[in-house]
Amino acid sequence: MRSAEDYQKWYQQPHTAGHWLDKFVYGLPELHRQELRTAHYVSGVGCNATASILALLPLAQSGLLDIAQKVIVEIKVGSSEGGAKGNPGTHHPERSGVVRTYAPFGHRHTAEVIQELGLSNVALTMTSVDLVRGALATAHVQLEPGTLTRDLWKVYRQVVAENLFLRLVKERQGVYRVPEPKILAGSNYADLGFDLDEGTGHLVAMCAIDNLMKGASGSAVQCMNIMFGFDETLGLEFSGLHPI
Amino acid sequence: MRSAEDYQKWYQQPHTAGHWLDKFVYGLPELHRQELRTAHYVSGVGCNATASILALLPLAQSGLLDIAQKVIVEIKVGSSEGGAKGNPGTHHPERSGVVRTYAPFGHRHTAEVIQELGLSNVALTMTSVDLVRGALATAHVQLEPGTLTRDLWKVYRQVVAENLFLRLVKERQGVYRVPEPKILAGSNYADLGFDLDEGTGHLVAMCAIDNLMKGASGSAVQCMNIMFGFDETLGLEFSGLHPI
Amino acid sequence: MRSAEDYQKWYQQPHTAGHWLDKFVYGLPELHRQELRTAHYVSGVGCNATASILALLPLAQSGLLDIAQKVIVEIKVGSSEGGAKGNPGTHHPERSGVVRTYAPFGHRHTAEVIQELGLSNVALTMTSVDLVRGALATAHVQLEPGTLTRDLWKVYRQVVAENLFLRLVKERQGVYRVPEPKILAGSNYADLGFDLDEGTGHLVAMCAIDNLMKGASGSAVQCMNIMFGFDETLGLEFSGLHPI
Amino acid sequence: MRSAEDYQKWYQQPHTAGHWLDKFVYGLPELHRQELRTAHYVSGVGCNATASILALLPLAQSGLLDIAQKVIVEIKVGSSEGGAKGNPGTHHPERSGVVRTYAPFGHRHTAEVIQELGLSNVALTMTSVDLVRGALATAHVQLEPGTLTRDLWKVYRQVVAENLFLRLVKERQGVYRVPEPKILAGSNYADLGFDLDEGTGHLVAMCAIDNLMKGASGSAVQCMNIMFGFDETLGLEFSGLHPI
Repeated sequence: MRSAEDYQKWYQQPHTAGHWLDKFVYGLPELHRQELRTAHYVSGVGCNATASILALLPLAQSGLLDIAQKVIVEIKVGSSEGGAKGNPGTHHPERSGVVRTYAPFGHRHTAEVIQELGLSNVALTMTSVDLVRGALATAHVQLEPGTLTRDLWKVYRQVVAENLFLRLVKERQGVYRVPEPKILAGSNYADLGFDLDEGTGHLVAMCAIDNLMKGASGSAVQCMNIMFGFDETLGLEFSGLHPI
Repeated sequence: MRSAEDYQKWYQQPHTAGHWLDKFVYGLPELHRQELRTAHYVSGVGCNATASILALLPLAQSGLLDIAQKVIVEIKVGSSEGGAKGNPGTHHPERSGVVRTYAPFGHRHTAEVIQELGLSNVALTMTSVDLVRGALATAHVQLEPGTLTRDLWKVYRQVVAENLFLRLVKERQGVYRVPEPKILAGSNYADLGFDLDEGTGHLVAMCAIDNLMKGASGSAVQCMNIMFGFDETLGLEFSGLHPI
Repeated sequence: MRSAEDYQKWYQQPHTAGHWLDKFVYGLPELHRQELRTAHYVSGVGCNATASILALLPLAQSGLLDIAQKVIVEIKVGSSEGGAKGNPGTHHPERSGVVRTYAPFGHRHTAEVIQELGLSNVALTMTSVDLVRGALATAHVQLEPGTLTRDLWKVYRQVVAENLFLRLVKERQGVYRVPEPKILAGSNYADLGFDLDEGTGHLVAMCAIDNLMKGASGSAVQCMNIMFGFDETLGLEFSGLHPI
Repeated sequence: MRSAEDYQKWYQQPHTAGHWLDKFVYGLPELHRQELRTAHYVSGVGCNATASILALLPLAQSGLLDIAQKVIVEIKVGSSEGGAKGNPGTHHPERSGVVRTYAPFGHRHTAEVIQELGLSNVALTMTSVDLVRGALATAHVQLEPGTLTRDLWKVYRQVVAENLFLRLVKERQGVYRVPEPKILAGSNYADLGFDLDEGTGHLVAMCAIDNLMKGASGSAVQCMNIMFGFDETLGLEFSGLHPI
């Protein structure tokens, strides 16, 4: 968080070292690659914030996203997001096979999406599903009438071309036509996808990640690579398993 | 469908017996119980349509839902929705552990939601998750500013009181604080829940069902019970298993 | 346990009320139905002991089982066997997708199999798999050379005929050709199956149960029904779900 | 298979190129590393044969295994063993959560275990469990009375020291005390473990693999590395994911 007030609001406790906040760069290379090259302090990123921000990134960078409008992001997550220590809700008989909307509103990572994309009205709704690693963010955005699918292809292709760990997944055939966290386990890739209802301007923008890689430690390694002038992909080449 | 034109639009083929359409009652007791008592023909209902309609029912019946506004329903579904016959996408190595948004728009059941609730702008987004039976619909609705959580409690309590197979699940503690399809397997209950951001009027309305019961055959039995004057719950008393 | 010495051996602690031991009937109706009718005290049974004993029951009652020989029972179990309270091994990220042979030897339920069938050399090997409810016991037994499959059909048919909650599952076609715990969730049935290598006399005898029903509380209710002269199936009629 | 007769017996059809059989080396480096260095033709290996052979390898090489005695191997397998094409049994609603002993006897891979270890009386019993990649073989062997656990430690340590892709997993504490296929997905390691009942000489010997790596293609790459004089681990360094 850049602001101690925002921290207090979302974490319900005062920040204990507020004077450090403005020294840190938010550790998402797709947003801050240039600053990271000279950064001394880089913050860790939230996994659900990462998936949400990257789902919206092509729209934000291209100006297609009106930041004043309402944005809804539905995020489906695996059990590893809960951390290494169990709780009654992660006991296997209770956690296996769930579809559990545990946070309709107010998830802390929402604050990062607001801060980094400048959105004024965004809701993250969190649902646990039966999966260990992985998160899928599905964002619902209203675009200007007249926006065409081919405009979006152009926008996504550019973002993907500029970021080694972003890929566009949009196939007409086959089992994996859209981003799928299942095949990203252990990988640092964030797979993006979209579908536009040209008649209404309703856009569904998706991002799949492995929350334990691109969602947290993978991005941290990627940031370190940039800070030290290493190849950005160093130590992050694993491309995932299929089937898994 | 009530209209052959709508059928053509959503099913991409002409209806072969259009003159029968207006003889049928839509087979959801929570909407048409009175008509069902004297009905000769009752249509089957779509499982995802059922979950979406029931999630929105308390709002529709109380007048809190402005039917002109945009409604987004995110539905997470189990593999039994695909039917008894397999396809490449339901082969276990490809289907296990997925979080697969297979239909951002255009799911056929959308037509039933539009028809039955009179909505003009609704999108159903479908995501497959690792589960056999079950569907969870999470609807995002904008309410009039000033609506309070306690207003919604009243509205939900009334709907639940009038319908034997609807329950309100809204707990402050424990593992199952919200509707959860996992524990409804084999049961005809539809569990409703909601969460309101009073500051913005953003409402998240949920409905969990077993798609093979309340989503299809269970509702059909329930309709038959009503048509024949039987107890509405006859043959539908199974209350689900926990843990499962 | 009938003997305080055996209790000490398998539970590594002295029995605190040894003088009560001989007042109790072991609560498995398939072994002690007659005694249960007049019993005042009935012991609970172990779920894995139940699956093992029932897998071997047709052989024991028909005299095909030589109790002096070595019997190996491999048992695959779901996570609900661990109880309602979690531990690090039942935390979903650690428990999902496991095939974990947690007790090659020495499982406490072995003592019940020895006591009830009079076996002198039996090993239960326990493996956790990804399932909530259910256990499958696969017993390996050496039969006298010359025993034929048709002899076993006769033996199994008789046992099944005498016990309402035992069924023989042995199909040539289809997906469910052998006992399968998955479809027994919530049911009190124990499904038996077998396959004989006539050339060597090696018999594989199987029993599938829901450990939370026939493996524990279901058998307890069944015992109570017998003790009170009720219909043995009272409250136990649920036949399971398919698919699940 | 080395013999056309054995092929006919286990595959129920004549071998179409029997004169080629004796030109091939069985492609398991742990058995034939020396021959592979000069081999021109190498056969692929069965995944379940690999798990069974490696579970028994320390015993076979040390002379502790009496090949005339009965050996029982219980193998639990994931759905990827069924291949890339689905069938009614791999349709997710039917395959999810199963514990299905689909082949008590007669699995084709048994022939490889007999051929490679010279066993005269071995049974492989196959059970499908809910997992995509992975197989666990649990072998039951009767050792000479007087064999001690410390003798086995010595035997296992030597085999592990001589084979880069074999590891001994035998811990007193923690969640992963024994070989576990779950954490081997994508890895070429075969993890071995054992437990001995010193009183009876009953040994449980385990081997966990990823059937799509060490069970098939991984071993094939390993063989190629040896044939061409490359580093045996080339292209096979992935060590698995945890949690997964």
